Amino acid sequence: MIEDSWDKKSGKTIRIDGNLIYEVKSKYQHIEVFETKYFGKLLRLDGVIQMTEFDEANYHEMIAHVPLSSHSNPEDVLVIGGGDGGAVREILKHKDVKKVHLVEIDKEVINISKKFFPGVSCSLNDKRVSIINVDGADHAKFCNESYDVIIIDSTDPFSVGESLFKESFYSNLKNLLKNNGIVVSQCESMFYDLDLIKNMHKFKTKYFKHVKYYYTMVPTYPSGSIGFQFCSNIDYSHNKVSNNIMKNSYKLDNLDDLKYYNNSVHFSSFVMPNRVSYFF
Amino acid sequence: MIEDSWDKKSGKTIRIDGNLIYEVKSKYQHIEVFETKYFGKLLRLDGVIQMTEFDEANYHEMIAHVPLSSHSNPEDVLVIGGGDGGAVREILKHKDVKKVHLVEIDKEVINISKKFFPGVSCSLNDKRVSIINVDGADHAKFCNESYDVIIIDSTDPFSVGESLFKESFYSNLKNLLKNNGIVVSQCESMFYDLDLIKNMHKFKTKYFKHVKYYYTMVPTYPSGSIGFQFCSNIDYSHNKVSNNIMKNSYKLDNLDDLKYYNNSVHFSSFVMPNRVSYFF
Repeated sequence: MIEDSWDKKSGKTIRIDGNLIYEVKSKYQHIEVFETKYFGKLLRLDGVIQMTEFDEANYHEMIAHVPLSSHSNPEDVLVIGGGDGGAVREILKHKDVKKVHLVEIDKEVINISKKFFPGVSCSLNDKRVSIINVDGADHAKFCNESYDVIIIDSTDPFSVGESLFKESFYSNLKNLLKNNGIVVSQCESMFYDLDLIKNMHKFKTKYFKHVKYYYTMVPTYPSGSIGFQFCSNIDYSHNKVSNNIMKNSYKLDNLDDLKYYNNSVHFSSFVMPNRVSYFF
Repeated sequence: MIEDSWDKKSGKTIRIDGNLIYEVKSKYQHIEVFETKYFGKLLRLDGVIQMTEFDEANYHEMIAHVPLSSHSNPEDVLVIGGGDGGAVREILKHKDVKKVHLVEIDKEVINISKKFFPGVSCSLNDKRVSIINVDGADHAKFCNESYDVIIIDSTDPFSVGESLFKESFYSNLKNLLKNNGIVVSQCESMFYDLDLIKNMHKFKTKYFKHVKYYYTMVPTYPSGSIGFQFCSNIDYSHNKVSNNIMKNSYKLDNLDDLKYYNNSVHFSSFVMPNRVSYFF
């Protein structure tokens, strides 16, 4: 039996049947791997369910394919966080991609994903991928590369990922983005974290002309859904890019492999219930 | 502290901070009301979270407005289950509605909702509403009325609502539906209950020409989302009825009050992730 995984924001606790099969306290966080009864293997970081084999595709496909299918020619991609390799696996399905920099502060996450989640980490040894083990906030500050797509695949704002939710991080990050580039970042639950989302929306609009929110459904997360902020200086809103998305999706190597993402899902994931859309 | 609310299908357990303020064992089920820390009052039936004040609108608006906004002139409406009154509250926002029959087997649910959830049960005394305390399966078998819209707002298939998930119920129900009528029924989670959904889809197509699935997000339910089957003999799919939906939505008395439903949400709620759409 997994111990309770408690959500600070809602006071909701989730318990999933399973046994602890590995744990380590890295320099940065408490990492646990469970073998569960219904969800396959499960990764927990600092007591928060991070991913399960059952529904990780819902998250990784949506954090990767929404920006990469919107962009007309995504060659250079940066991922900050995402040491499990799931986002990288999806990014490399786009044939345009020539270079992926994966900036993951915690080597242990990468090692554990390679050992216990081979279906997630399977692309980390691809020759297009460079792994850089530094703090993502430092990379944004000191890096002099530029990218077509930047993906912030972070943990929650109250753990090791905290600095990735701050304005200073985005004020540096904008300098790494090419003119028609896109930044997508994990941005919590529209039902539990609306204050955080509104606050981040406000400061991101200082650095990017267009800031949109979209979501995916991940049943093992506290509210069952999680969202992303999509930032750019070009307007990539729905109708304007529909042709691009159609075109690019056909460039995917393994379209039939996708478990969640398709063109219709791309558009509908930006549609918000009134209780959320009223604020934007 | 609420005791664990366990989900039979996923083995996932949800705990929400709160105190039991009322409980009764009715003839049909164990009914509990909790005052929770983050979600307002919560209703639990036979150990399963049924609704919270926080997110009940996400459910009730979508079970009601999707069929009622699709139909060109919904005058006569039947609700089976739904004794809390939430679906009725939303139905009566449509000015065309002249008559609502609420068939709820368990009087206690109605009494408890009137006492503890006045914001949900507020329309149950409306003069257009008749409450009938019989088994929904019997009503389908013996009733000789006919309806424009029928809404099955049931509990899960392993409790008092079991008969409402059976083919025999739908083979009777079809006789209560007018030619251009719509049946919408609660149909569980696309992530946890796909076998049930596929099975029901199969037998419903014997009685209705068109069977579609759509979903809403309810954070306090086990997978964070729940779906509905939309059955009709006319094709009410998206583009064909968009004008109707636009027109009808303006007929709503309190459009600004809606917390979840809007025209864009209507369309996007029918869009399925690949892992689900592959099966239909």
